[in-house]
Amino acid sequence: MEYLNNLGQKAAMAKYALQKLSTEDKNAALRAAAAALTDEAERILEANHADCEMAAANGMSEGLLDRLKLTPERIKGMAEGLLQIVQLEDPVGTLMESFERPNGLKIDKVRVPMGVIGIIYEARPNVTADAFGLCFKTGNAVILKGGKDATHSNAAITEVIRKALADRKITPDAMQLIEDNDRAVTTAFMKLKEYVDVLIPRGGAGLIRAVVENSTIPVIETGTGNCHIYVDENADLDKAVPIIINAKTQRIGVCNACESLLIHEKIADRLLPALGCALREKNVEMRGDARVRELLPDAMEATEEDYGTEYLDYILSMKTVASVEEAILHINRYNTKHSDAILTENREHAEQFLREVDSACVYVNASTRFTDGFEFGFGAEIGISTQKLHARGPMGLKELTAYKYLIRGNGQIR
Amino acid sequence: MEYLNNLGQKAAMAKYALQKLSTEDKNAALRAAAAALTDEAERILEANHADCEMAAANGMSEGLLDRLKLTPERIKGMAEGLLQIVQLEDPVGTLMESFERPNGLKIDKVRVPMGVIGIIYEARPNVTADAFGLCFKTGNAVILKGGKDATHSNAAITEVIRKALADRKITPDAMQLIEDNDRAVTTAFMKLKEYVDVLIPRGGAGLIRAVVENSTIPVIETGTGNCHIYVDENADLDKAVPIIINAKTQRIGVCNACESLLIHEKIADRLLPALGCALREKNVEMRGDARVRELLPDAMEATEEDYGTEYLDYILSMKTVASVEEAILHINRYNTKHSDAILTENREHAEQFLREVDSACVYVNASTRFTDGFEFGFGAEIGISTQKLHARGPMGLKELTAYKYLIRGNGQIR
Repeated sequence: MEYLNNLGQKAAMAKYALQKLSTEDKNAALRAAAAALTDEAERILEANHADCEMAAANGMSEGLLDRLKLTPERIKGMAEGLLQIVQLEDPVGTLMESFERPNGLKIDKVRVPMGVIGIIYEARPNVTADAFGLCFKTGNAVILKGGKDATHSNAAITEVIRKALADRKITPDAMQLIEDNDRAVTTAFMKLKEYVDVLIPRGGAGLIRAVVENSTIPVIETGTGNCHIYVDENADLDKAVPIIINAKTQRIGVCNACESLLIHEKIADRLLPALGCALREKNVEMRGDARVRELLPDAMEATEEDYGTEYLDYILSMKTVASVEEAILHINRYNTKHSDAILTENREHAEQFLREVDSACVYVNASTRFTDGFEFGFGAEIGISTQKLHARGPMGLKELTAYKYLIRGNGQIR
Repeated sequence: MEYLNNLGQKAAMAKYALQKLSTEDKNAALRAAAAALTDEAERILEANHADCEMAAANGMSEGLLDRLKLTPERIKGMAEGLLQIVQLEDPVGTLMESFERPNGLKIDKVRVPMGVIGIIYEARPNVTADAFGLCFKTGNAVILKGGKDATHSNAAITEVIRKALADRKITPDAMQLIEDNDRAVTTAFMKLKEYVDVLIPRGGAGLIRAVVENSTIPVIETGTGNCHIYVDENADLDKAVPIIINAKTQRIGVCNACESLLIHEKIADRLLPALGCALREKNVEMRGDARVRELLPDAMEATEEDYGTEYLDYILSMKTVASVEEAILHINRYNTKHSDAILTENREHAEQFLREVDSACVYVNASTRFTDGFEFGFGAEIGISTQKLHARGPMGLKELTAYKYLIRGNGQIR
């Protein structure tokens, strides 16, 4: 606890210093950090090599190893990520509203940094630089806790960036890393409410659940996506198959990939044979209800559990429904409030679906894969929020800020 | 738990029905609820009488008994509160942003209800009608848990309003009350994440702490105010005394009352004698540091604990400081991020204070008592948020809504 309090105090000191930096100062520091990452690539790669060897020896899966592994290109990508953040507009200081009251009080609502942001994530070292960049640009101090398998990589990246900051006379405590991998430390970090203003978990459902259950700090939940596509009876089938294949297979391990397909029963016999061929070609395992299995004999049976599962894999659950209402009810029961789509040429059905599906992003005739900061034109994002408080959907720079009211008077009393 | 799951399921059903109501439907229902409260005043007063008798027998303090007690006038006030909410603009459905992407996707950001709001509060029956009105106008279903001493009053108010809704063919589950006063039920309610989108505690520091520590639902913290006034060396003393007296004594039990005064040491000997007289006249107990006690011999010694205490009473802690920087450091250490003020005629000091004090509302030359929905022109409020996530300061109707993105395409894939 003393260790964490110490980090917290340093972050609290740093946040006041960061609030005073101009956009130019912040951009110059981000450029310096990007340059330092490239200059010190060798050292970061060495640290990462140690992490990868240890993880491989501990039996880490290929997929996770790939996310852990850094290459010269990936380090270049991290540096380019910071340079992209330089290009984004700085939201801090924006006047959001300004009004005068009858008693003469002038009230300004101004965008300000959150203060101190905590980020808990998995063994993905690229998040270390990325999260720093987004928090720094918005004038926030950040405390990072990455997955223990990336300890050396994260420490090296943090050291390089902190030195780049210090060289520019900016407090290196703008970026701090929790290097103690004891679980109790991580749990205590989730309760460091005195110093941390908001906590953002970036990772799978298990990580997010642990944070939500333990944190006393306000949390923004991100990134679990049990995304649905509903093919309405009035869908254009020429659009439907490419959209479904894109949403399911263009990148399987991401939160905006489609996991579950609902099909209006009247269109099932026209859609499913063609879709089945396309899915088989991509080696997607099909799991469906009785009607689906009639039309796709190689499909397995889908259980209740299937409908609630974010596979992040080459698996698709499928279910026939009798109406758009049934589709909406099913989606609102099983989705994770992330992204869901209707494919239809019927305007009324489209509008009903848009209105009634309770998700951050609701689509008509497009792939769910567009839920992404860059695709929305926001630029780099800290995650996709699946909660309703504060921010929903892709969270860019603005979503890393708060506001405050500045009230100027000349002696007013009540 | 079955009891709570049942409430949660009903609220989840109700929220979809409420989303479809027009502003006119909602306003008509609020008018009907207001009329019903007046018509059924006798019944509500009887229930309240039972609560008050039991509370008095259990030794409830005068102050708390006064907050619990209803009178015909207070019930009229509750009804008028609902009619005031009718007058407020309905934020639901507002188009917040609308843009088109190069690939042709049209993205609308639209204000929507949160869904289901949980409110936990103390034995103040007026909150029951008030919280319902604000949640209902914003299309949210509400689940209320009031203080156990107000059980009969809350049940009567809820019954009257639910009947008024049902008479208008609106689902009465828009408003539900947890009538089981078992502590374990309240704690389980704080974890009813499957059904409740946001939880708002309304009450003292102890209640808020219990909610923050136990809830897995996103919480908005409201209403603890250790508010400061800093009298700068360049203050206009003719403004200072009335502002301090107003902020401290105009209403002592409220969260925007001043609890702590900082005085620049160079102005202490000019301010304190006159201020001391004014405070004594209002029977305010003074607690100060050595310099304060030199100038006000009847002041007691202020401890560290004093500086961190929200008295909600006729007590004021006082401390001399050597600079605006010292004042800001002290405030950022001890405040509750609610409302703090500087009294100064020095523009630079004012701007520094506005920028660096970390509070929802920062004032120059005005009483902290203005942090209030009506004073800001927002109308009725659900509370004053003291956290940074989602909403800060007075929370009106807009702050009870979320948003979602509606994306319309014609076959776009990535």
